[in-house]
Amino acid sequence: MKKAEIPKETVNRLPLYLRCLNRILLRGHKTISSSELANLVSMGPAKIRKDLSYFGKFGTRGVGYEVKPLIARIREILNLDKNWTLALVGVGNVGSALLSYPGFNRGCFKFELIFDDDPEIIGKEISGKKVHDSSEISDLVKKSSIKIGIIAVPNEKAYDVADQLVRGGISGIINFAPVYLDTPDGVKVYQIDLSTELSSLTYHLVS
Amino acid sequence: MKKAEIPKETVNRLPLYLRCLNRILLRGHKTISSSELANLVSMGPAKIRKDLSYFGKFGTRGVGYEVKPLIARIREILNLDKNWTLALVGVGNVGSALLSYPGFNRGCFKFELIFDDDPEIIGKEISGKKVHDSSEISDLVKKSSIKIGIIAVPNEKAYDVADQLVRGGISGIINFAPVYLDTPDGVKVYQIDLSTELSSLTYHLVS
Repeated sequence: MKKAEIPKETVNRLPLYLRCLNRILLRGHKTISSSELANLVSMGPAKIRKDLSYFGKFGTRGVGYEVKPLIARIREILNLDKNWTLALVGVGNVGSALLSYPGFNRGCFKFELIFDDDPEIIGKEISGKKVHDSSEISDLVKKSSIKIGIIAVPNEKAYDVADQLVRGGISGIINFAPVYLDTPDGVKVYQIDLSTELSSLTYHLVS
Repeated sequence: MKKAEIPKETVNRLPLYLRCLNRILLRGHKTISSSELANLVSMGPAKIRKDLSYFGKFGTRGVGYEVKPLIARIREILNLDKNWTLALVGVGNVGSALLSYPGFNRGCFKFELIFDDDPEIIGKEISGKKVHDSSEISDLVKKSSIKIGIIAVPNEKAYDVADQLVRGGISGIINFAPVYLDTPDGVKVYQIDLSTELSSLTYHLVS
């Protein structure tokens, strides 16, 4: 089945499935039943079976789903099987953490260009990458094949950085600054807000 | 309506709504129609209206939903209106980024205790907080009212840190180390995997 034929609501649920399946895999389990998975994601098993049926045959009655192939198929649908090169702007605390984060700067995401506007840092190497001057963002990004830019700069600088990334031809922005970025239609913005991400934990800690 | 009566599947969708509504608010909009919100989250407007009807009356025909009260109600349901004090273990790159992350160490999440096992760092102050020796985790957490621990240490140390946090009486763990933590029934683990979080972006960048 082609990606376009998978209902949007099913696609919306894939990151949730992926998070649970990765955890199951880390635990060393090779299969999982639809009722176990249903329990982990707080959904009905029938709906899960329906969702997973869109991706092909992974389940065997009485055995359950094979975790590894299922993860691979979900990653493929979410385009996490491709290589994404990134431009990072801002190598303060957040930027440095991203550069050294295990499981991020390998696999499908790789930092190709990094920028900062601090003269003390420009030209130096961080995690094996030369830091370029932020004034060169649009030029250097244009010459690269980078499609995703990460903004990890103070709020007031985020707008200008976003403009430069857009002029460089980026099609997706991951924004760590808590400000609204107004981008052209073809450019998606993913706003990172840790407190929202953590709400699935806080919801369950108070009943 | 009491929280317990809100269907789990609706609760699962709340972080998605919250992320979009926060973006709408940053943009300066005071109201949003169900069809606009439906478009942003790739769902049918009827389902959104049904979901939101569980929280009380926010919509006015022809005007739409009031964004601020809706955000407040969703945050309340997700327990993001409470104050959560945190214990952070590991003040390397990831830990330091969390300590200085704007919008995290204020609002509902506050770091109360921080730990590391590096003798060079123990006793020093980082972001105004004294760094304690990791061997004191269970003792100090037990004396506090902290319910959430954040693990930002290398993989091989994560297991022992989790044990110490559990012995300290923690009920939720946010784990940045890509390893499976086996915790008792009452302790929830939220595994942070940036590549999964970013899949909602990568899905839309290739069609």
